[in-house]
Amino acid sequence: MRFTGYIGEIGQAAAAALIGGDDVVLNLASGEYGKGFGFWAARHCRELLEIEVPYDDAIDSEAVGEMLAARPDIRILSVCHHDTPSGTVNPVREIGALCRERDVLTIVDAVSSFGGMDIHPEDVNADIFVTSPSKCLGGSTGISIVHVSERAWAKIDANPAAPTASVLSLKDWRDAWRSDVLFPFTPSVSEVHALDAAVQNYLDEGPEAVWARHALTARACRAGVRALGLDLWPARDAICADTATTVRVPEGLEDEAIRREARGRYGVVFSAGRGSLMGKLVRIGHMGPVARPIYAVVAVSALGGAIAALGGKADVGAGVEAALAVIDGAG
Amino acid sequence: MRFTGYIGEIGQAAAAALIGGDDVVLNLASGEYGKGFGFWAARHCRELLEIEVPYDDAIDSEAVGEMLAARPDIRILSVCHHDTPSGTVNPVREIGALCRERDVLTIVDAVSSFGGMDIHPEDVNADIFVTSPSKCLGGSTGISIVHVSERAWAKIDANPAAPTASVLSLKDWRDAWRSDVLFPFTPSVSEVHALDAAVQNYLDEGPEAVWARHALTARACRAGVRALGLDLWPARDAICADTATTVRVPEGLEDEAIRREARGRYGVVFSAGRGSLMGKLVRIGHMGPVARPIYAVVAVSALGGAIAALGGKADVGAGVEAALAVIDGAG
Amino acid sequence: MRFTGYIGEIGQAAAAALIGGDDVVLNLASGEYGKGFGFWAARHCRELLEIEVPYDDAIDSEAVGEMLAARPDIRILSVCHHDTPSGTVNPVREIGALCRERDVLTIVDAVSSFGGMDIHPEDVNADIFVTSPSKCLGGSTGISIVHVSERAWAKIDANPAAPTASVLSLKDWRDAWRSDVLFPFTPSVSEVHALDAAVQNYLDEGPEAVWARHALTARACRAGVRALGLDLWPARDAICADTATTVRVPEGLEDEAIRREARGRYGVVFSAGRGSLMGKLVRIGHMGPVARPIYAVVAVSALGGAIAALGGKADVGAGVEAALAVIDGAG
Amino acid sequence: MRFTGYIGEIGQAAAAALIGGDDVVLNLASGEYGKGFGFWAARHCRELLEIEVPYDDAIDSEAVGEMLAARPDIRILSVCHHDTPSGTVNPVREIGALCRERDVLTIVDAVSSFGGMDIHPEDVNADIFVTSPSKCLGGSTGISIVHVSERAWAKIDANPAAPTASVLSLKDWRDAWRSDVLFPFTPSVSEVHALDAAVQNYLDEGPEAVWARHALTARACRAGVRALGLDLWPARDAICADTATTVRVPEGLEDEAIRREARGRYGVVFSAGRGSLMGKLVRIGHMGPVARPIYAVVAVSALGGAIAALGGKADVGAGVEAALAVIDGAG
Repeated sequence: MRFTGYIGEIGQAAAAALIGGDDVVLNLASGEYGKGFGFWAARHCRELLEIEVPYDDAIDSEAVGEMLAARPDIRILSVCHHDTPSGTVNPVREIGALCRERDVLTIVDAVSSFGGMDIHPEDVNADIFVTSPSKCLGGSTGISIVHVSERAWAKIDANPAAPTASVLSLKDWRDAWRSDVLFPFTPSVSEVHALDAAVQNYLDEGPEAVWARHALTARACRAGVRALGLDLWPARDAICADTATTVRVPEGLEDEAIRREARGRYGVVFSAGRGSLMGKLVRIGHMGPVARPIYAVVAVSALGGAIAALGGKADVGAGVEAALAVIDGAG
Repeated sequence: MRFTGYIGEIGQAAAAALIGGDDVVLNLASGEYGKGFGFWAARHCRELLEIEVPYDDAIDSEAVGEMLAARPDIRILSVCHHDTPSGTVNPVREIGALCRERDVLTIVDAVSSFGGMDIHPEDVNADIFVTSPSKCLGGSTGISIVHVSERAWAKIDANPAAPTASVLSLKDWRDAWRSDVLFPFTPSVSEVHALDAAVQNYLDEGPEAVWARHALTARACRAGVRALGLDLWPARDAICADTATTVRVPEGLEDEAIRREARGRYGVVFSAGRGSLMGKLVRIGHMGPVARPIYAVVAVSALGGAIAALGGKADVGAGVEAALAVIDGAG
Repeated sequence: MRFTGYIGEIGQAAAAALIGGDDVVLNLASGEYGKGFGFWAARHCRELLEIEVPYDDAIDSEAVGEMLAARPDIRILSVCHHDTPSGTVNPVREIGALCRERDVLTIVDAVSSFGGMDIHPEDVNADIFVTSPSKCLGGSTGISIVHVSERAWAKIDANPAAPTASVLSLKDWRDAWRSDVLFPFTPSVSEVHALDAAVQNYLDEGPEAVWARHALTARACRAGVRALGLDLWPARDAICADTATTVRVPEGLEDEAIRREARGRYGVVFSAGRGSLMGKLVRIGHMGPVARPIYAVVAVSALGGAIAALGGKADVGAGVEAALAVIDGAG
Repeated sequence: MRFTGYIGEIGQAAAAALIGGDDVVLNLASGEYGKGFGFWAARHCRELLEIEVPYDDAIDSEAVGEMLAARPDIRILSVCHHDTPSGTVNPVREIGALCRERDVLTIVDAVSSFGGMDIHPEDVNADIFVTSPSKCLGGSTGISIVHVSERAWAKIDANPAAPTASVLSLKDWRDAWRSDVLFPFTPSVSEVHALDAAVQNYLDEGPEAVWARHALTARACRAGVRALGLDLWPARDAICADTATTVRVPEGLEDEAIRREARGRYGVVFSAGRGSLMGKLVRIGHMGPVARPIYAVVAVSALGGAIAALGGKADVGAGVEAALAVIDGAG
């Protein structure tokens, strides 16, 4: 199902459709985006439970299993696969399997991982799976992609609070993918064509090749960042995303200054942290067209150059060589 | 203010932001779209009043004045300028003046008239004025345009129920037009550029010239339709829109068949009625790129040809000559 | 073979490549474009022969047979399929067969017929077949399409005067269609993509469907023009092109005034005659996106309206009805 | 004057228009492109003189002055500003001044320097000045830009051999820039719009800023290449172009292997030498969108990485640091 709306919109729509007034929801928060979903969920549910971990860490699937066992009234679980502001990934496959065992419905936010990593709705037992062509598919931003399982549709149909006749209504979009059914609202025609083009490019290149391209770029970037003498934000390598690299701001420097220097000197744009992470890290995206290994070299050069320009310590030569070594090793 | 969302979305957002739980709202319904706004309004207000007229007619501003006098607790009035499915226009200038006298806030839907007719928020005392680049400006469909008056912002600020952190939140977009303020959601970049291009084209051609182009096309179309031997849907000429012509389906024919023949034989697409008007009329749009007089000839030819093909009566030659006569007279 | 250059360019290139200093060339002139090719041919050949007919007529293939018999030293024959300024077509199939019998090489200009009528290089025994995506394929104007037979390549290879290292050199382009061969000059990348898109659209719609669309549009237009009370330019129906309709300027009117009125009043652009035909006729194109029957109605309306506006006689109602009758009859 | 054709085309057209059968032409050859122009010139002139220098060097303006003094019958001088395959620039300002003193007409090829360096027709006394939007302006490739001085038009008018009615005819294009004059051939409409956009971008950014951007990128690249431990191709810094950097292929390596590794490993495309320079050097372009300093870092990284991968010596860390130091110094 295509949903012609914004990423935020589709998350809200998912919460509004699936979550009824009697439902207990378990929201997993390992970062700002996961945490944020809880606020939307809370608008609709009877009780919101959360497992929250520090935002440089990932959810532990064992803890999820224990919570599900302790609270068999949990009806819906929500989780972010890649919590973008943190650059960390959660074990959604394991979590999805646990939920399926207990008949818990899941809402999975894969906005910034689908298309760049090996994740599909069925693999992770997602009941509502939300993503966007604008991230790893390199597409446009005005449309979302959402998968809704038959189990989720049954729940939505049974939910008297599920919106209709609203832009926040998943139900209105249920059959809009059919060629003989009208869109519920005037569609953004150019966005629909852009989505088709993005998906076609993805299939033409081959999903495995696209994932490998994202992974190699991220590995080269991480190696380069470390060789610069900097620290990655995630607590350990195993939870680092392939679609973004987050770097801890060195002692004595300010993230805004680093981003300003990188942009001003080299034309390279890094992202800031969000919410509670603001000021603590700098983010390097590897999604879509910039998920190419040479961009890791660009990022490492610009990051190192910016830090050096601010009087910080960064061994740019070593950083670039380390990134190149990873790329060369992949040949 | 630009609002990166759909037309329906912005109407809902306007209702949600402006209408508080204590408000009495007067909704004016002269067609399906005006009527439809009432349903959104009813979700938020204490009491919904309506003035409703047959859908081939327009609201009488005197009746509005009387209602405002009778119910001084009316806080908000909502009205559709051009009720698209009917092809009729309401006297929003007069209605706006009445509201201003009594300090009633107005929500004006000018989606399918702004850019094609002489209407601007200030002229009609609109407090929330909703439109789209996708209609008369010939632009794209994925973005809306909304004007919010200072009085409306004050009301919204005072409304505890006004949404925030939602795609339905006008408040989130309040400062998004400023170059130093981020959009509340990832914007559809191509839609923003498309809006700018559409507005630039409008200004380059000159608003007065654009309105005249719409008006001449509509006049030629109405003359042609009548000379075909058909009846216009609106009860009288004074309430016919310059941006769409609606034609009563002749006795003994079906609107769907007419539309099918026009499309199949001539590649000309007419619109159907909506809701209660379905089957009663056929709609000919004159908006943006098709608001050129020669398209009136195209429409009259195709409408007449389709009706004739179905065994109905339509004097195509007379219809085309009448349309051309209007065009020639405008030289 | 794709040739990244202009239509005129490719005609010149064909002449320069194929025609040697010892060659006798028979050029067939039934219009300005056929005649014009003779000037290019004359730059290269030993002797230029011509069969010329009035420009409202077409070449008689019998006369060609007689000339080939009388002058067995003719080595190359050049002919325009659709002589655009006249709106007439020549019997290139028959002429091609005659040439093949006598081993005469042919240069066929199918610029404004290929893609809109049933003509392919092999069918007409064309040795050099020149066309463009910008006419009936509805594509872009900065690139040409040329077919060169093996026999023609052998002749070009044996021609010491065939240009190389020049934009006028067919030889430089010989292998440029191969993915492992560079273009001889920096290609216009956007034009190459535009060509691919135009050809893809043509194949998707289906060549037979595209030809039928052109033919129906032309038939409707001719019927409409006659019912207006005007005369077609071609001497008889059998030689009228399906891709353009040419109309004799009525006594007492000026073509420029007709075109000015049609453009000014209705936004409909007609073409003028060329060279000796200037002032004698008005041209209505039916190529690519405007080769749709309803455009015949548009053309007939605008032509009739313009003539009437100038005080001429034109029965617009009858014209439109006649055009519609042809379209309806095709259902 | 815009010339809707290819770069090679316009050079040929300039030679054909300006050079008459009685003319003595002095062609300056400091590279393959300058040398190549001589072949075109030789097709038209009575006598072709040349000053040729090794292709890693530039023309000496004193030598030009001496030649002009020795052969007062020289009527036309031709020179390439930036001989692209060599990455070297000639002192066209000085040469132009010498020519003006002696009333010698000049043909200046500024294809790969205009828009990226400070050169304009008037500054260098160019009588025919040829360039393209596709290089430093970052535009499209299917159109050329040519300036023709009044003196050159007088010469062309007096040249009976100047082509007309040909795609190689400058004369046909003389007035095509006027809004009331038709193009001599069907124009490539998209190319014309693309040219306008490219020029507008150039003017919006500001020519001086664009030149500075090209110059800084080239300086950073040269510093990086040297720090890698490689040799620049040009004999000395003063003649290095700001729009391309050419690097001598290290002993024991092959240019094709270097280019293959750079493309395969990093997705970075270098150009080969041309003609006699093939195999001797690798070219890094700095034109239009890639004329941004960070691309110097990309080029140095990829070049160093490729050479290292082939077993050559290249200090990538030092190279990148040197490039960054130049960029930082420019702040």
